[in-house]
Amino acid sequence: MAATRRTRLSPDDRRAQLIALGVGALASGPLEDLTLESLARSAGVSRGLVAHYFDTKDGMHSEVVRAACDSLLHATQPDESLEPLDRLHDTLTRLVRFVREHRLTFYSLVRGAASGAPEVRELIDETRAVQAGWLVAAFLELGTPDGETLRIAVRSWIAFAEQTLVDGALHSELSSDEIVLFLDRTAKAIVAAV
Amino acid sequence: MAATRRTRLSPDDRRAQLIALGVGALASGPLEDLTLESLARSAGVSRGLVAHYFDTKDGMHSEVVRAACDSLLHATQPDESLEPLDRLHDTLTRLVRFVREHRLTFYSLVRGAASGAPEVRELIDETRAVQAGWLVAAFLELGTPDGETLRIAVRSWIAFAEQTLVDGALHSELSSDEIVLFLDRTAKAIVAAV
Repeated sequence: MAATRRTRLSPDDRRAQLIALGVGALASGPLEDLTLESLARSAGVSRGLVAHYFDTKDGMHSEVVRAACDSLLHATQPDESLEPLDRLHDTLTRLVRFVREHRLTFYSLVRGAASGAPEVRELIDETRAVQAGWLVAAFLELGTPDGETLRIAVRSWIAFAEQTLVDGALHSELSSDEIVLFLDRTAKAIVAAV
Repeated sequence: MAATRRTRLSPDDRRAQLIALGVGALASGPLEDLTLESLARSAGVSRGLVAHYFDTKDGMHSEVVRAACDSLLHATQPDESLEPLDRLHDTLTRLVRFVREHRLTFYSLVRGAASGAPEVRELIDETRAVQAGWLVAAFLELGTPDGETLRIAVRSWIAFAEQTLVDGALHSELSSDEIVLFLDRTAKAIVAAV
C-alpha cells in the first residue's frame, strides 16, 4: 500500500503517480471531491508536496482530467485501416467498452467536469471536438456534403452519445452490442436527416 | 432605477422582485457570477436583506434557476389541441424563439447550471425530464412502441437539442426556421432509428 511505505520517486515519476492516483479517484467519486488533501492522503505524502506539483486544486484537476481524456481518446482512436462505416462501428464498440470498464470515471468526466474550473471544461470541450472531428472525417469520406449543419449535427450527436452512455451503458441493463447498435444507427440517422 | 429609490415592498413582492432580478442577471453573465452581494446591489438593498430571503447563494441560485426553468417550460408547453407532429413542430418553434429571445439566459442555464449546486442540477434535470415526457407522449400517440430504448433515445435527444440550440441558435447564422426543421427532423430520425 502506497500509504504504508513512502518510496522516493523522481519528480517525473512522482507527478505521474499523483496524476494516476487522481484519475483513479474519479472512479469512486466526483471531481469536486478530489482535493490536494485527499490526493496527498492516497499517495501517502504531504499536502505541501502535492501543492508543489500542481499549485492549486484547479491546476491538479486540469492535469487529472487531461490524463483521463487522453486515455479515453487513446482507447477509442479510429482504426484508419478500416472503411468509414466499419471504422465508426469499431470506434463505438471500443467507446462502450471503455465506458463500461471505467464506469464512474466516465460519469465523473461528463457530469463532474462541467462543474469544474474553466480550464477543465475547456479540456472536455477539446476532447469532444476531437471526437467530432473523427466523425466528420468519416462522413466526409462517405460523401456527405460538408457545411455548418453537418458540424452542428455531429457536435450535437456527441452530446447525444454522452447521454446515451450515461443512461444506457451505466444505468441500464442494455447489452453493449445493443448500445453500440443504438449509437451507430442514430449517428447515421442524424447525418442523413440534415 | 431600482437602485436610486428604495421602495417598500411586501415580503412576497420583494422575494419576487429579487428572483426576477436574478433571472435577469443570467442574461448578462453565468450563474456563478450571481452572488447575494451582486443581487443586493442590483435591487438596491442590503446583502442582509437578500440573505434573509434565500439564506445562501446556493439557495438563491435554486430559486432563480427554478423561475428561469418555469418560464422556459411555460413558453414551450405543448398545445394539446394539435396533432402530435404539428404539436412537436409548434413546440420546437416556440423553443427556438425562446432561446433566441433569451440568448445568454438559456446558455447560462445549460452551461452554468451544470456548475451549480446539486439542487440546481436537479432542477435542470427535472426540466429535461418534463421535456422528454412531452416528446415521449407525442411519439406514443404516433404508435411508437414504448420501452427503455425510446426513453433513452428521447432523453439523449434532449441533450442533442440543447447542443444544437447553443451552437445553432446562439452561435450561428442559421435561420430560426432552419433550426426548427433541423430539430424536427433529427427527433423523428432518432426515434425511427431505434
